[in-house]
Amino acid sequence: MREVVITGVGSTSFGKHDERGLESLAVEAANGALRNAGVERNEIGAVYLGNFIAGPLSGQEVLAGIVADELGLENIPCTKVEGACASGGIAFRHAVLSVAAGLCDAALVVGVEKMTHASGGQVTQALNCAMDNRSDGPSGLTFPGLFGLAWRIHAAKYGTTRDEVSAVVIKNKANGLKNPLAQLGADLSPEMIRQSQPIADPIQLYDCCPVSDGAAAVIVVARDRAKAAPDLPIDVLACVQTRGSPRIGGHQDIVSFDATVKAAERAYQAAGLTPKDIDLVELHDCFSMAEIIDSEDLGLVPRGMGAKWAAQGRTRVGGDIAINPSGGLLAKGHPVGATGVGQLYEAVLQLRGMHANQVKGARIGMTHNLGGAGIACTVSILKRSDA
Amino acid sequence: MREVVITGVGSTSFGKHDERGLESLAVEAANGALRNAGVERNEIGAVYLGNFIAGPLSGQEVLAGIVADELGLENIPCTKVEGACASGGIAFRHAVLSVAAGLCDAALVVGVEKMTHASGGQVTQALNCAMDNRSDGPSGLTFPGLFGLAWRIHAAKYGTTRDEVSAVVIKNKANGLKNPLAQLGADLSPEMIRQSQPIADPIQLYDCCPVSDGAAAVIVVARDRAKAAPDLPIDVLACVQTRGSPRIGGHQDIVSFDATVKAAERAYQAAGLTPKDIDLVELHDCFSMAEIIDSEDLGLVPRGMGAKWAAQGRTRVGGDIAINPSGGLLAKGHPVGATGVGQLYEAVLQLRGMHANQVKGARIGMTHNLGGAGIACTVSILKRSDA
Repeated sequence: MREVVITGVGSTSFGKHDERGLESLAVEAANGALRNAGVERNEIGAVYLGNFIAGPLSGQEVLAGIVADELGLENIPCTKVEGACASGGIAFRHAVLSVAAGLCDAALVVGVEKMTHASGGQVTQALNCAMDNRSDGPSGLTFPGLFGLAWRIHAAKYGTTRDEVSAVVIKNKANGLKNPLAQLGADLSPEMIRQSQPIADPIQLYDCCPVSDGAAAVIVVARDRAKAAPDLPIDVLACVQTRGSPRIGGHQDIVSFDATVKAAERAYQAAGLTPKDIDLVELHDCFSMAEIIDSEDLGLVPRGMGAKWAAQGRTRVGGDIAINPSGGLLAKGHPVGATGVGQLYEAVLQLRGMHANQVKGARIGMTHNLGGAGIACTVSILKRSDA
Repeated sequence: MREVVITGVGSTSFGKHDERGLESLAVEAANGALRNAGVERNEIGAVYLGNFIAGPLSGQEVLAGIVADELGLENIPCTKVEGACASGGIAFRHAVLSVAAGLCDAALVVGVEKMTHASGGQVTQALNCAMDNRSDGPSGLTFPGLFGLAWRIHAAKYGTTRDEVSAVVIKNKANGLKNPLAQLGADLSPEMIRQSQPIADPIQLYDCCPVSDGAAAVIVVARDRAKAAPDLPIDVLACVQTRGSPRIGGHQDIVSFDATVKAAERAYQAAGLTPKDIDLVELHDCFSMAEIIDSEDLGLVPRGMGAKWAAQGRTRVGGDIAINPSGGLLAKGHPVGATGVGQLYEAVLQLRGMHANQVKGARIGMTHNLGGAGIACTVSILKRSDA
């Protein structure tokens, strides 16, 4: 397999894009990545598009081909992949594999979602397409409910408090304030979070990521093709995809997702690295409790300490490990199919030393994208190519 | 890249499966393929699932992981791919690539769709997710309309008559009568077709494939792993995926789909074969006119002669080229995400000499899966491994 690098990234802002369609968002992000990579359209040999619920919410499938057509790309394989909230990470993995296996020298990854045009009820129903609708779906347990249950268990096992969890929210919302693409950065106090609307006890409003529109794109190329790239290429050291149980009851331990644990193990092994080598991570904080679980599952924080490390400032920019310097899903937003690709966008800017909320001297970055009730996961490890 | 063979196939019947869910159909087909291939569950290293509209019609996404969980497969990458009616063919291509590139030694492909539980209006709306909904969708031009327009042009250019088109229907419906998995085999006369309900003039009821439920599955393995297979392994000589215009107005010529022409060219080249070498083809006859266009685009029938060859009996089993000996989409049915995998199931039985409507001495088979208004296409060429 050939070595693969990222030479270009692009993104729309995440948030409400009332007047714009899915295709327009995807095309803006893709054009940004193509310009950034300095590649010509006829050099792209494959398109992978991550999208989750354009079918139910917009009545539009076959988006990979539609976006490629709009971009004026050649008659090349264009594939939409779907793995709920991990759709973007899965799209990236397939582009990397296409180049690594020598099927093409350059591939375009796009993630896109448009959600804010739908009602809250429509969005909740569409998001529940990520549940197993033979079991968890009919029980009425939505995703806030899942992470509310996890929170109670985490609190019982490890003594995690409301204010410790709030430290995650406060950090990510503050990081989001520095990110020009973020939807909901904010300067919050523990008191403001404690007084916010209950959603699925103990989860409150600020513990939840927003509903978002947005798109992000990445260009991957074979290493020997990267010389002409205008910006610093970023090495893809590992890109792993795993599966976990589709059902809440299928997890041995609801405060850990097997798909993340396995993906991280395999990614560290493929990269020849350990958690200590990671300078920053963009991880899947769809809820504050999700960041806590993810950071422990990835081995970046000791088991049970996810919230306490946040409260101690150890997961801020400048701390032991910078978690979600972009603001994460909580503050940057969560246009589902775009999220995993957006994480790569953020990590690449960090490793190039060009991020608005820069982790000083960042050499190694990780991204973590988790779908459904832990059913699908991708973990990637990236490195500055001159580091 | 390593050589890849098919060692196992499985399928449900296509038709109405009122009491059964998507997962149950997919699992039946997959278990059939696993048994047929003689592989253990822990040998499967990747799952690719083709599905088009389980989101809009059943509120269920992440089907790849759900089906893998139900099958008791390991913690492996499980990916749903979507390319409208070509979803199944795209799933097959990705499984082949995974094995060819050495990511795993064996992969499971599943295609599944459940449609008959929805109303006709819901199905039409869901199928229109395969249109570009910024242009063709709002025009009200559904897929019968598209192929009705193509028919008029084909008739004007080549003098194709109603009765010549009916010869395609009569052949496929008769083939379907011999296929135990087929939904709507029938013994029809030109008169019965001429008197059937108008759908989108000149298309009539019998020119259209039915709405179907069903699933099919294929196991692909590296050639050196195929020795233990209980049944004759089938070589995958080529598996090509292309893109065409998403819009009707984007095609230079509505009686030819560029995605098919390009996919066929590349597949013949990869296999080192010409159209004359193909003994049978399972091609994408969602409408009678689609078979006519496809057979010409694939180079199997001279341009303009698709209907005339059918009328002359040259595309029957025993003719110059056996087209859709399974009954095709017209008679076997079209559970959209399953169709491309079902075509492979049929071709494998033919090449093993075990088909209920056997093409005598079949050595080389082709499958052709086309999505949307020609936006996505896959063409595969298979060979008896002892031929």
